[in-house]
Amino acid sequence: MSVKKLVVMKFGGTSVANPERILSSAKKVIKAKKQGLDVVVVVSAPGEMTDELVDLARNISPEPDRREMDMLLATGEQISIALFAIALKSQGAMSVSLTGGQAGILSTNSFTTAKIVGIKPKKILECLGHRKVVVVAGFQGMNAEGEITTLGRGGSDLTAVALAAALGARAAEIYTDVEGVYTADPRLVPWARRVERLSYDEMLELAGAGAQVMQSRSIEMAKRYNVPICVKCSFNNQEGTWIMKSSSKTKSSAMEAPLISGVALNKSLAKITIQKAPDKPGVAAIILRELAKDAIALDMIVQSAALTDGTNHISIMVERAASQAAQAALKRAGREIGAGRIDVDESCAKISVIGAGLKNDSVIAAKVFDTLARRRINIQMISASDIKIACVIAERQGLDALRTLHDALGLGRKKTGRVDRRI
Amino acid sequence: MSVKKLVVMKFGGTSVANPERILSSAKKVIKAKKQGLDVVVVVSAPGEMTDELVDLARNISPEPDRREMDMLLATGEQISIALFAIALKSQGAMSVSLTGGQAGILSTNSFTTAKIVGIKPKKILECLGHRKVVVVAGFQGMNAEGEITTLGRGGSDLTAVALAAALGARAAEIYTDVEGVYTADPRLVPWARRVERLSYDEMLELAGAGAQVMQSRSIEMAKRYNVPICVKCSFNNQEGTWIMKSSSKTKSSAMEAPLISGVALNKSLAKITIQKAPDKPGVAAIILRELAKDAIALDMIVQSAALTDGTNHISIMVERAASQAAQAALKRAGREIGAGRIDVDESCAKISVIGAGLKNDSVIAAKVFDTLARRRINIQMISASDIKIACVIAERQGLDALRTLHDALGLGRKKTGRVDRRI
Repeated sequence: MSVKKLVVMKFGGTSVANPERILSSAKKVIKAKKQGLDVVVVVSAPGEMTDELVDLARNISPEPDRREMDMLLATGEQISIALFAIALKSQGAMSVSLTGGQAGILSTNSFTTAKIVGIKPKKILECLGHRKVVVVAGFQGMNAEGEITTLGRGGSDLTAVALAAALGARAAEIYTDVEGVYTADPRLVPWARRVERLSYDEMLELAGAGAQVMQSRSIEMAKRYNVPICVKCSFNNQEGTWIMKSSSKTKSSAMEAPLISGVALNKSLAKITIQKAPDKPGVAAIILRELAKDAIALDMIVQSAALTDGTNHISIMVERAASQAAQAALKRAGREIGAGRIDVDESCAKISVIGAGLKNDSVIAAKVFDTLARRRINIQMISASDIKIACVIAERQGLDALRTLHDALGLGRKKTGRVDRRI
Repeated sequence: MSVKKLVVMKFGGTSVANPERILSSAKKVIKAKKQGLDVVVVVSAPGEMTDELVDLARNISPEPDRREMDMLLATGEQISIALFAIALKSQGAMSVSLTGGQAGILSTNSFTTAKIVGIKPKKILECLGHRKVVVVAGFQGMNAEGEITTLGRGGSDLTAVALAAALGARAAEIYTDVEGVYTADPRLVPWARRVERLSYDEMLELAGAGAQVMQSRSIEMAKRYNVPICVKCSFNNQEGTWIMKSSSKTKSSAMEAPLISGVALNKSLAKITIQKAPDKPGVAAIILRELAKDAIALDMIVQSAALTDGTNHISIMVERAASQAAQAALKRAGREIGAGRIDVDESCAKISVIGAGLKNDSVIAAKVFDTLARRRINIQMISASDIKIACVIAERQGLDALRTLHDALGLGRKKTGRVDRRI
């Protein structure tokens, strides 16, 4: 078996929600087999099953033991692999299902949020050697004691990327209920267009900006091991979106095409401001230390220029769910550094523009600010990287900002041919 | 840990069907712990889950692969062990769940009907040593290749008895939705009474006669390893029925008490008669060989005295579901031995009387036949062992025969004190 002939195909919960969908997903695998490929399938739990199991456990105990939660939740993917293998066999493809542990996915001990520490692909390679499609349970692993663990949010995508890396697969294909990555969320911008290709970094920024197609941790692993990812729709034969290293060829084609990958809106954030913090070294460090104590992830931090009284305002953006905890942390920090009061704004939103074109190109940045200004949208905070500009604005203006920027940056522009846009 | 302090408690599907029942079953375990016992719990899949999973698989393929069926069905018990362990922990008992494989239950390779080949109790003993209640998934094992197998019908009871044997437990307590073994099926004889104690052989005969409380294979294993079994109700604190070796003490108490354990009616049988088979050696062997070819289990075989023409009739009783296959087998046998036509009667029933009292006691046998005769119930076939008399009668007279015999043999008789009857 040549590994170059191997592809990992991952099917999400909606793609295995019922017998019809399982059979239809299995057909995609059979098609790949007929094209001469070896296939490793990774599946999630069917439909809403994971949520139902969580509810069941919470009806027994408000804070169920985490080891037992993993024992419980792992059954969802186990049901999917068995049914998927049955579907493949019923259509004439030799196949075998493997739990995460059987597939050699070794993890840390941290139940419900385990990390993959390595993959021993002996059993998978053996089965592939027998010309079988290997169907692996996503989201789960086994610790050194042989106990079942789960990998937390986005765990099935991670399993697919990790297996593709360990097996040297040509790609990890992620089948989902959307047609790929879009220039903006199609529910908010119905005329948004599918992106054909993105770099890992662009996808990371998009994920961080609120695009829910894939979790950052899978993209990070794909970037580290240079695994090309293709996000595709389970329910049709569209091309999908490739996420891969920007090759020199890509770069040259990028120069002839729009340079922005997409825009994203995140309305689940809160802005917390600590007033009149003394303008001296170490203040930001104290704030970050207090946030870290409660494991609060920081989305953005901005410090104003020093005021005339030798103080300045420091604002942070955090997930709205962490707002209470973040306020408490900032109060502790405020007392320590002798700052003024804490302000909270939970009616703000973050709009992000992502694309390689932002690098060395102040024209696009200027266009972003100018577009927002023309719509009388006030920018409260700005944060920028090589490939991203993020602005905090009022939540009520979020949708308007998203649509206006999407069109002003030419993302909705129709092009000839089947390719929507290039980067 | 003294093994004498260990008990295995097995909870069936109805006892773990929902969070309330799981919590209520867990309370029984906590109570045993508080009495100073070490406990290994064995659980079945919740409620109807196994049937639902089978339906799901059949919606994908009419004949799903057996290895994958085991991968699928094992999830039912895995859900139960996780939820049960969560329930125990929520009530303050340290506990840990183990799949069949993790618990060291090693099986043959025959998926969906695997047999236990051994138990490596290292992990269980380790967890018991840490004062934990160990919750083991019933019905499942692991073959030598580390693949998940299931043990077929009655598999969870078998797991409980096998663990009790391997761990030297004082008993296997089987919690179910009935209050124990009854002198007759209470749905048919509402005034039937719970039996306090039975020997393994009596229980085997009762199971063979159609009593559905426990499968024969678990009783056989309990007999081989001398594991006392107690069948109890999950939903109350009744005494239940003990199934154990007849001790000399039991025998002496038996002499003072009624000697019949119970009566049972089986209406799911078919009688097939091969007419005018030549009366010569080897004929029965040919019939049995043909039945064995299709793995048809024989419930009873009776041969008439030779007729004047040097032939005789041979009748067999088989499960009605196997009637077609048995007829075909008997036709093959009939052609080979030169017999007459095949008759089928699917309107018959078998009534069985079981008890140690039948041994050396023709008074009871006489009473059985006399009772049936008085009710004008014709006996078509008779089969008897040391502890059982079985009669084939017309199905329409089955219920009348059951109730009449039950009362004529004194099984419904009220005794003083809490003990219903002794054998």
